[in-house]
Amino acid sequence: MKKYDNSQSRRKFIHQTAISGVGLMLLNPNYLFATQNTNGMSNNIPSKGYAGKDEKGKLVLWNFERRPVGDHDLLIEIKFSGICHSDIHTIKGHWTKQQYPQIPGHEIAGIVTAVGKNVSKFKVGDKAGVGCMVNSCMKCDSCKNGDENHCETTGMVGTYGAPEKSSPTGITQGGYANNIVVTEHFAIKIPSNMDLQFAAPLLCAGITTYSPMMKIKVKKGDKVGVVGIGGLGHLAIKLAVSKGAEVYAFTTSPSKVNDSKGFGAKEVIVVDSSEKLKPWFGKMDYMISTIPYAYDVSSYLSCVKPNGSFTQVGIPINGELTINTFDMISNRVNFNGSLIGGIPETQEVIDYCAKNKIYPQIQIIKAEKINEAWEKVVNKEARYRYVIDAATI
Amino acid sequence: MKKYDNSQSRRKFIHQTAISGVGLMLLNPNYLFATQNTNGMSNNIPSKGYAGKDEKGKLVLWNFERRPVGDHDLLIEIKFSGICHSDIHTIKGHWTKQQYPQIPGHEIAGIVTAVGKNVSKFKVGDKAGVGCMVNSCMKCDSCKNGDENHCETTGMVGTYGAPEKSSPTGITQGGYANNIVVTEHFAIKIPSNMDLQFAAPLLCAGITTYSPMMKIKVKKGDKVGVVGIGGLGHLAIKLAVSKGAEVYAFTTSPSKVNDSKGFGAKEVIVVDSSEKLKPWFGKMDYMISTIPYAYDVSSYLSCVKPNGSFTQVGIPINGELTINTFDMISNRVNFNGSLIGGIPETQEVIDYCAKNKIYPQIQIIKAEKINEAWEKVVNKEARYRYVIDAATI
Repeated sequence: MKKYDNSQSRRKFIHQTAISGVGLMLLNPNYLFATQNTNGMSNNIPSKGYAGKDEKGKLVLWNFERRPVGDHDLLIEIKFSGICHSDIHTIKGHWTKQQYPQIPGHEIAGIVTAVGKNVSKFKVGDKAGVGCMVNSCMKCDSCKNGDENHCETTGMVGTYGAPEKSSPTGITQGGYANNIVVTEHFAIKIPSNMDLQFAAPLLCAGITTYSPMMKIKVKKGDKVGVVGIGGLGHLAIKLAVSKGAEVYAFTTSPSKVNDSKGFGAKEVIVVDSSEKLKPWFGKMDYMISTIPYAYDVSSYLSCVKPNGSFTQVGIPINGELTINTFDMISNRVNFNGSLIGGIPETQEVIDYCAKNKIYPQIQIIKAEKINEAWEKVVNKEARYRYVIDAATI
Repeated sequence: MKKYDNSQSRRKFIHQTAISGVGLMLLNPNYLFATQNTNGMSNNIPSKGYAGKDEKGKLVLWNFERRPVGDHDLLIEIKFSGICHSDIHTIKGHWTKQQYPQIPGHEIAGIVTAVGKNVSKFKVGDKAGVGCMVNSCMKCDSCKNGDENHCETTGMVGTYGAPEKSSPTGITQGGYANNIVVTEHFAIKIPSNMDLQFAAPLLCAGITTYSPMMKIKVKKGDKVGVVGIGGLGHLAIKLAVSKGAEVYAFTTSPSKVNDSKGFGAKEVIVVDSSEKLKPWFGKMDYMISTIPYAYDVSSYLSCVKPNGSFTQVGIPINGELTINTFDMISNRVNFNGSLIGGIPETQEVIDYCAKNKIYPQIQIIKAEKINEAWEKVVNKEARYRYVIDAATI
């Protein structure tokens, strides 16, 4: 395991960044590791990416700076970045007021191009990923237990839009960019046999659906309902099927029927009205809903067997979802939510998918097509995850 | 165990109805047991009670008829009838459109005054109660398992307002009345050592809070939060305390603090703003909410420890409750509902309360004060359950 600090030879550093293709114009490699160079100038790392400038949510190319690589940090040259519906909600201010310019993206896969002197798990040239968070307090019980996503003190620091003192822009900036600096602990090792474009969506869509299904212990023969067959839903099908579950896909898009069967769903229910759900009342052992808009959740809840569980992972505008208490008292279902997963579990899902050859169904796009892709995501036209080729940024 | 059918002697029947104080003017005892007398006239049982005539929800004295006592039926002379907030919601059409006149009341305690020939568990003179349901299919798995409240075919037949062919008024009529005819299976035996006025509220308020707490297995040392300290809530405190739980009462009424401590609550939180809940986030093993109106349920949900449960038993107008998905994904709480309990469990709670001397805190009122009492219930002025003295009807 190679480490870098300011005492390392320039030649060695340049060599190693070169083999990993970092592509930075390095007059002085120390540039990466200190906040100021010897002239007292900023040593921030130049970066570029597609940023939202306001709530209109149209992304434009933006040059900005990342913090220098700290002793515990990695610099990753981003190769691929997935487009998640959360990116759209966030930048458009659907959930809460945002600071701009802001670069979204929390499904990041790339190559390590530099590591701080205290980094022990990564070396230059490794495949690495970053998901939905880039920091947490690391001291509370949740952080110590690998539930950094539920950090009890500072809360998890989101990959974009979160206030961050060390960031030259004042907030974290996400993965629709050519590089990212991240604390080692929050980077995920991507197995060498997994292509980066497939790894990227697993870092949000994968872990978000994997985590609650592991918590509920989805097992062989369980009837699992997946509601909303998009970026998250199609992976939920594949993951549940890989655990031996009988999967029932619920979608409003007739055009997704065959695809869903291809992902392994036993049956696909096209829900063009709540009536279509009635035959399924009380039939599922477990359900997971990825729908990111307000919808008639109560009718879906009723599809779960009494005392079963239903997990909502999609978050509507303002977060509000109205339930019918009558249904709740009748169906006796446990309704819960789930927020991505901790770092160890994110590593687990990546390793699990690599081992079992579970890959998202993706469409690689050039950066200039991001805005178009966003429209298609909103219009349910993604099949099933857009992944940005970061070389085109 | 004595049984009656049309072949029994008139003298014996009159004797036994007399000792139990039924007070009916019986020219012919068979009157009770057949739908038509020998003249082809109706043999329905005359009854009187306080009925709502429309959605205004003002109750007035009304003379009506019950069905004759069938082979599996009991006739109960009602002694006491509790006032539940559900009565108000139902009659005022808050939940669904109603048929009028309709007599509410599903916390009914009285004395058996006649039994059909196939009745085996009750005899004239017994204390008996009727809760929230008076029938179900009795054939489905749920009914066979004692979950008649979750009957899978007809659904449970509510004690009032449910369409019922055998009822002369076309719908079931509830307990704000002087008598009731009920299928034996749906009658609850009230132990001889329990006063009827205390038994009545246990048949809804008691079982509704007991059932979910038994399902979740509330045990010694558990931190249990009770939200809304009214008819249900004050019993939830007593029941949870009786199981050894540390109970935390959440109320919006400062005047309920001392009472709640008297019921056994360890601490009482007066929630005059959602801010008051923040110190309690993640502290409770379990919570039960009895609030029958829309409220900020998400802030309360966050008071439960991760992976704990929260049961909503109060039903708001239209049943709608809006949750915050952000809170749900962060707090990892299982949100569920609960609908009274089955007949065996209703019997269990009555027996448990009799054995452990757990009684509701009641205020006995004359029938003429029902409308006034309803206003007080809505205004949170009940302390803590109004019970109608049916002798005053």
